[in-house]
Amino acid sequence: MNETESLNLAKQLIARPSVTPDDKGCQQLLAERLGKIGFIAEEMNFGDTKNIWLRRGDSAPLFCFAGHTDVVPTGPLEKWDSPPFEPTERDGRLYGRGAADMKTSIACFVTACERFVAENPNYQGSIALLITSDEEGDAHDGTTKVVDALKARGEQIDYCIVGEPTAVETLGDTIKNGRRGSLSGNLTIKGKQGHIAYPHLALNPVHTFAPALAEMVATEWDKGNQYFPPTGFQVSNINGGTGATNVIPGTLNVKFNFRFSTASTDIGLKQHVHDILDNHGISYDLDWLLSGQPFLTEAGRLTEVARQAIAQVCGVEAELSTSGGTSDGRFIKAIASELIELGPSNASIHQVNENVALEDIPKLSAIYEAMLKDLL
Amino acid sequence: MNETESLNLAKQLIARPSVTPDDKGCQQLLAERLGKIGFIAEEMNFGDTKNIWLRRGDSAPLFCFAGHTDVVPTGPLEKWDSPPFEPTERDGRLYGRGAADMKTSIACFVTACERFVAENPNYQGSIALLITSDEEGDAHDGTTKVVDALKARGEQIDYCIVGEPTAVETLGDTIKNGRRGSLSGNLTIKGKQGHIAYPHLALNPVHTFAPALAEMVATEWDKGNQYFPPTGFQVSNINGGTGATNVIPGTLNVKFNFRFSTASTDIGLKQHVHDILDNHGISYDLDWLLSGQPFLTEAGRLTEVARQAIAQVCGVEAELSTSGGTSDGRFIKAIASELIELGPSNASIHQVNENVALEDIPKLSAIYEAMLKDLL
Repeated sequence: MNETESLNLAKQLIARPSVTPDDKGCQQLLAERLGKIGFIAEEMNFGDTKNIWLRRGDSAPLFCFAGHTDVVPTGPLEKWDSPPFEPTERDGRLYGRGAADMKTSIACFVTACERFVAENPNYQGSIALLITSDEEGDAHDGTTKVVDALKARGEQIDYCIVGEPTAVETLGDTIKNGRRGSLSGNLTIKGKQGHIAYPHLALNPVHTFAPALAEMVATEWDKGNQYFPPTGFQVSNINGGTGATNVIPGTLNVKFNFRFSTASTDIGLKQHVHDILDNHGISYDLDWLLSGQPFLTEAGRLTEVARQAIAQVCGVEAELSTSGGTSDGRFIKAIASELIELGPSNASIHQVNENVALEDIPKLSAIYEAMLKDLL
Repeated sequence: MNETESLNLAKQLIARPSVTPDDKGCQQLLAERLGKIGFIAEEMNFGDTKNIWLRRGDSAPLFCFAGHTDVVPTGPLEKWDSPPFEPTERDGRLYGRGAADMKTSIACFVTACERFVAENPNYQGSIALLITSDEEGDAHDGTTKVVDALKARGEQIDYCIVGEPTAVETLGDTIKNGRRGSLSGNLTIKGKQGHIAYPHLALNPVHTFAPALAEMVATEWDKGNQYFPPTGFQVSNINGGTGATNVIPGTLNVKFNFRFSTASTDIGLKQHVHDILDNHGISYDLDWLLSGQPFLTEAGRLTEVARQAIAQVCGVEAELSTSGGTSDGRFIKAIASELIELGPSNASIHQVNENVALEDIPKLSAIYEAMLKDLL
């Protein structure tokens, strides 16, 4: 493929140092570019976060591309082989912060729209882009707020592609059709501090918690389902003790996280944890944080069109997956009938020397274009 | 009782600010005082630690008083009602750092010797004092080194009183006839760090250790015996995690301690812990520190003489106990046939406003004198 528009636009975006939650003019660039082919831009900013909703057409079905212009910090500059905000071609790859996560996929979708609209100016339906500058940060004023506003005025997305990097080994090998939910607990076990030689005057919270911890680690929270692996429980931090070796600690703090499938609910998991702690007679405080509900798009029209586009462009058979961390898809699913994530390789994301293969760039744009043709 | 020599000597000792491992001339004062009644002084210093061996007579049986002239630091001076190194009488008590632990018992033993020798200059046997200035510190160059030297030249103690504060409610209520051993472990569980969303790529050491911890907490290490409660296991510190809530920790550090009875051995306890860890297939490093072996003087001649002296002076029936922390008795027992600890109240030791009841001082001296009469 000789298409170079996508590469050029990706470079323009990478050259803007839009470290989260800054946008650094990326969204303005997209608005100008898509404005030339009839997209209407609507800024939907909240707090310091820039969000933009770009739409062409007002009939159904609505095909939406979702993404973010912000990038994670560069990390140590001296470890980059070329400056992170100077997009650089080297050894068949494009290097720069955001090359994979996710400025290249934004560029590819814009160029796909340009070609598709040029060939099919009167397509049936609408195309939209939902772009935020706060996906890598606390994500408080980004996609979630835009979705609330869109929902309030009755917008409904029929097909949504989130341009997150999803390829594991080769472009197109993986389509994410859902993500697990994330539920975190901050647990403080309450005991009574004392001298280690006089345990009858103290209550060791490590000891009272030990059998409950063993039970939590051994528990099968659910069996998963067709699309999800079983819900996982992991302790991230456990800290108790004064540092002195002759003192029984007064409290024990434990931070844990569930990555949970649609076979469980956050309410059910919370109740299960409280039951275990209560059954062991433990005195505790427990604060919960629900970072995201699980979401799922079952195999259907959108996944099939994506698989066909990938097969046609790359000759690869894509697998559906729900593994990995959270994405803004968890917010958009509330107004999207079908939603998948599909983008370039995730091998180098959040690392130094982030990159994408040059040959994958026109291919990714061609996949998006083929999907536009099939769905609209 | 009108005896005031013990009080006066206790004050002279308290006035010397001998914060561990400093002796500040206390031992010289004892040597001068006891030299006048025929005791031979032998300095046995190691490193910065001053030790002295004072002996009168060279025949058996050998009755030895053991103690220390060093004291723990004062803590916050503004919390003391009178300066810690200005011995102060107030409300029927003598206040000062070392009043209870253990300058008063040293003074009482010296005056007991003075009265006993004056009345019985040709007693059968020998009297000795083994005094160190490093009991409250790391105890590396103190009693343990003196005992090694005495053992090397064939000294054997028949009856030993360690003057540690042992009274719980009232003078004479408790004789310590043994102490538990102390064995500590510094355990590092080895896992593999990773992202919490990808647990199959990591190995959570908190999870691998959880069932072993539950087993250790639930284990009955021994049943104790006539003199000792069952061996106790306590975790003092447990720390794992990076602080981040989305990272599975790579290692978990656990510090624990056994206070063990003569019903167990350090070798047996170590093996039991290794068996538990190995049976759970855990990868770990484990460093052991044996702070002291348990020791025991069974009820016999020395405990009976002490109980009679207490009954005669105080009208109290003493109980034998092996509870509490370690003392230098653990070292001396290696060369002493019978050894007990007997001193004033331990209610205020290591605290601000450390004190001893004025009325207990001549009584404690009278108890020691009665024991000298009975045993020599």
